[in-house]
Formats: sequence, C-alpha cells, structure tokens
Amino acid sequence: MADSERLNKQMEFIREIDKEKLIKRQNYITDAETHENDAEHAWHMAIMTLLLKEYANEDIDVLKTITMLLIHDLVEVYAGDTYAYDEEAKKTQAEREAKAADKLYSILPEDQGEYLKSLWLEFEEQKTPEAKFARTMDNVQPLVLNDATDGKTWKEHSVKKSWIMKRNQRTHLGSEAIWEYAKENFIERNVQNGNVIDDTDSSVI
Amino acid sequence: MADSERLNKQMEFIREIDKEKLIKRQNYITDAETHENDAEHAWHMAIMTLLLKEYANEDIDVLKTITMLLIHDLVEVYAGDTYAYDEEAKKTQAEREAKAADKLYSILPEDQGEYLKSLWLEFEEQKTPEAKFARTMDNVQPLVLNDATDGKTWKEHSVKKSWIMKRNQRTHLGSEAIWEYAKENFIERNVQNGNVIDDTDSSVI
Repeated sequence: MADSERLNKQMEFIREIDKEKLIKRQNYITDAETHENDAEHAWHMAIMTLLLKEYANEDIDVLKTITMLLIHDLVEVYAGDTYAYDEEAKKTQAEREAKAADKLYSILPEDQGEYLKSLWLEFEEQKTPEAKFARTMDNVQPLVLNDATDGKTWKEHSVKKSWIMKRNQRTHLGSEAIWEYAKENFIERNVQNGNVIDDTDSSVI
Repeated sequence: MADSERLNKQMEFIREIDKEKLIKRQNYITDAETHENDAEHAWHMAIMTLLLKEYANEDIDVLKTITMLLIHDLVEVYAGDTYAYDEEAKKTQAEREAKAADKLYSILPEDQGEYLKSLWLEFEEQKTPEAKFARTMDNVQPLVLNDATDGKTWKEHSVKKSWIMKRNQRTHLGSEAIWEYAKENFIERNVQNGNVIDDTDSSVI
C-alpha cells in the first residue's frame, strides 16, 4: 500500500502543473496561426535533446537535461511568460519567478520539491554542462519555429538582428555545432530575406 | 564541423513533429474548455513518470520510459488521434499507425529512426517494465484530467463504468499502487457522483 499522503501531494502537483498548457508564448507553431504554449515548448525541447545530444560540447546526463527542460518553465504557471525582448517585464522576472517556485514546489513531497527546485536553479545559473545544453535547446527551438513560419513573430515585433545575437550570445556554450547551424540556417537566412532587420555594421565589401 | 546532412535530417524531423501540437484529444485540460493535444499529453506524462516512478511494480529505466512516452503518439501526426471508445476507428488504427511510423521515422538518420520506431513498437507490445509503466501513465493521465473537469468528457460521451474498467484492465501491470489510487479517487468517485454511468452488476449488500 502506497503512502496515500505522499501520492495525494504528487497528484495535486500533477493537476496543478496542467496550467502550463495555458501559458502562451510569443512565437507560433508551424501552422503560423497558433501561439505555442509552455508545455508544447518543453515537449519539443525534450525530443530535441534526445536527437541532438551528440552535438553537446561536453558530456551531458541526458535524463537530467530533459528533466530540467520539462520543468524549467513551470514557474510561469504563477509568474507568467516573459517575452525575450520585453525589457520592462524582464526587470521583475527573477523575483516573480523565485516566489512562484517557492509556491509551486511546496506542493510536492519535500524531497521531490527540493530536487526539482534545485534543477530549476541549476538551469538559471548556467554553470553545468546540462544547464548549458538545455539553454541551447531553449534558444534554438524558437529559431526553428520562427524560420518555419517565415519569421512571423520577428516581423510582428520588428526584431533586429542585434537583439537575436545578444539573446544568443551564450547559445554556443552548450553546442558549437548546433549554434553554427542555427546561425546560418535560421538567423542569417532570415536576415537575408528581410524577416529580421539587419542593424549590424555591414562588413566592408 | 558537424555532418550537415545528418543535422539537416534531424532538424527536418524536429520541424515535422511540431504538427503533434495540432492533434487534438477528446479530453479537456483543467480549464474544462480547451481540448488537450498530443504534445501536451506527452509532456504531462513525462513529468508524471519522474514523480511517480517509485510506484512502478518493477524497476524501470526512467530515461527509456520517458523517451517512449514523449514519442509514442508521434504516429498520429499522419494517422490522427483515435478516441479510446471509438470502436470503428480502432479497427484500422494499427494499420494506419504502422504506415505513419514508416513515413515519419524515415525522415531521421537511420540509427535514430530505427531506435525511436523500436521504442514505439515496444510500447505497443506491452511486454517490458518500461512499456507497462508507460501504459499506466497513458491511462491514468486522462483520468486525472477527467476528474479535474468534473467528468466533462465522460458526460459528453455517456461513458459507462464498464468501458473505463475494460480500457484499464492492464493499468495495474505498470503500478498496482497507482492503479488502486486511480480506481478509488478518479473512477469510483465519478461513478458515485454520477459523472460515469454505473452499468456494472451491483454487489449484494
């Protein structure tokens, strides 16, 4: 017989995180009409990790990386999504998300709550190979979708190349190979075709 | 420098499976308004596995189980979702899904395509501890959502207790503890309150 108090807490958490399916992101899925939500984004990145782990700069623990990606946006259930290029919202993001993490993870049995919270912090701190690779996934996945939708979100927000490059300044730390591929196939291609505004200093021809 | 042909195939697959976010399921998420999609369902079950693995009847390889759950509905990108209680559609389900698997997994580099297809078959065959636990998750997750939405899908489809019990006749094979919990908290409670039609033989009082 299972400890029903423990299982009650786990099931309550499982029910609560369902709300992540309602947290909408700025970017569209490949139909170019539906905004993606956080749960879909996490699922997509988990599969990307399974397929692309061979390109990690350093050996990674795949289960740990996937766990990190599956849960890293859960704080948004209470804190909301913060768009990558919304500078005002980003000022309060860390504080909002820390409060949300305390509230959310306290639903779980203490050992599991502490573990997931520590993984979320590990992701935020960006020091371990797993956290770096997870960040690469988190940055590249929206590039895939933006490219597949002819840069729809980029055009809607008049996104400049310098913004994308700044946001991606650490993407290579998880995987040089994936970053090189993404830069050429997802960023440069959309700068060339005008979906992204080229505000960078043109090289001398 | 990465093998760009290989990475091209992987990225094409990653873009293609995005369509899973458009495959709607019969059940609602906890807002009781939005139909769940396959990607959300897979994400939810992956986290459930992380939290509930301690209740597995047999030791399971958690990464393998999660991988199985993340990908097991991908065939629906081409084959569509088949509702658990749609007996007509279920007759052609296996054939439709086998064709879909061949088409989908051939996009990937051969080693990865073969591996994911073998995991999908392993899930379908229900022989290994991982496949059994994954099936338990696949059966219990919609029970969580149905219970959380006051049995909305059950009421819409006039679902009978005998249907649910038949569908769940193997749920205990992955975890006796989770099945006992689900039976009491998700099924019996909704039979008692009338959300599920009780067509089973009443026990003699």
